[in-house]
Amino acid sequence: MLTATPQLVEQLAERLMQKGWMLATAESCTGGMIAAACTDLAGSSNWFDRGFVTYSNEAKQDMLNVPGALIAAHGAVSEPVARAMARGAVAHSRARCSVAVTGVAGPGGGSEAKPVGTVWFGWHLEDGAAGPQTHAECLRFDGDRAQVRQATVQHALQTLLKLVS
Amino acid sequence: MLTATPQLVEQLAERLMQKGWMLATAESCTGGMIAAACTDLAGSSNWFDRGFVTYSNEAKQDMLNVPGALIAAHGAVSEPVARAMARGAVAHSRARCSVAVTGVAGPGGGSEAKPVGTVWFGWHLEDGAAGPQTHAECLRFDGDRAQVRQATVQHALQTLLKLVS
Repeated sequence: MLTATPQLVEQLAERLMQKGWMLATAESCTGGMIAAACTDLAGSSNWFDRGFVTYSNEAKQDMLNVPGALIAAHGAVSEPVARAMARGAVAHSRARCSVAVTGVAGPGGGSEAKPVGTVWFGWHLEDGAAGPQTHAECLRFDGDRAQVRQATVQHALQTLLKLVS
Repeated sequence: MLTATPQLVEQLAERLMQKGWMLATAESCTGGMIAAACTDLAGSSNWFDRGFVTYSNEAKQDMLNVPGALIAAHGAVSEPVARAMARGAVAHSRARCSVAVTGVAGPGGGSEAKPVGTVWFGWHLEDGAAGPQTHAECLRFDGDRAQVRQATVQHALQTLLKLVS
């Protein structure tokens, strides 16, 4: 299993430590890979607070307060759920920023509207100066389950780095 | 990053599905790698419920109800904390069994009593027939941070497979 480049995580670590911010992750389709990539780096306890691996819908509700009605209305792989996961991760941690992912890693679970490779990303920043901000984005990755998951980790952390820079 | 062999995860999946049990993970030093190894397997939503990446001490308290006094008295890398993490993972999920790890992955953080490579493992099973059982074990792994983390994932899942078999 490949993960994000160490260089990307090092840059993210440096930026978060400069700001004095902790990070929390909320992962569905990547199942802990984003948290694992972050904690690959020695000293990550200085900026990584916790990770929520909310694989089941019940976990999204229990751990992150994602409303069940939101999941029922839009599906677990959707913009409102990605945003709610990102906000929930900050609300239920000591972190000032978060990244959340929910997608269809495959090979099963795809549909015409949400084919395999579809991933919704959410990022939430509790920025004192700018106020709270939530960003969301949808991407569709090619490849098998492992490739979709790897690409998701990479994009999640790359965009987080941009947002905190 | 290498993780547990796919064969091990496949055997675990088969056994858990036979029993109709869900799994929850509680990870400190591995930072999500055990959850990631489980969810590498397609269809893991049938038996993997959620993962708690409780990297900070606050996360262990908030997410798993590990008493702060226990951490203060024994340290985060200790048998009572590993047991409390394993029990907390089942108590705060829909899972019937859990695996928990807390250790010193290095290169920093070691001490004479708990050198780099020291890992406490906990496993909790809510077995209707046999009643609730918590197991704990301490191992000391050689190698660098990545090797200690990989060996921890492997042992956590190997022993879990034995316990549910």
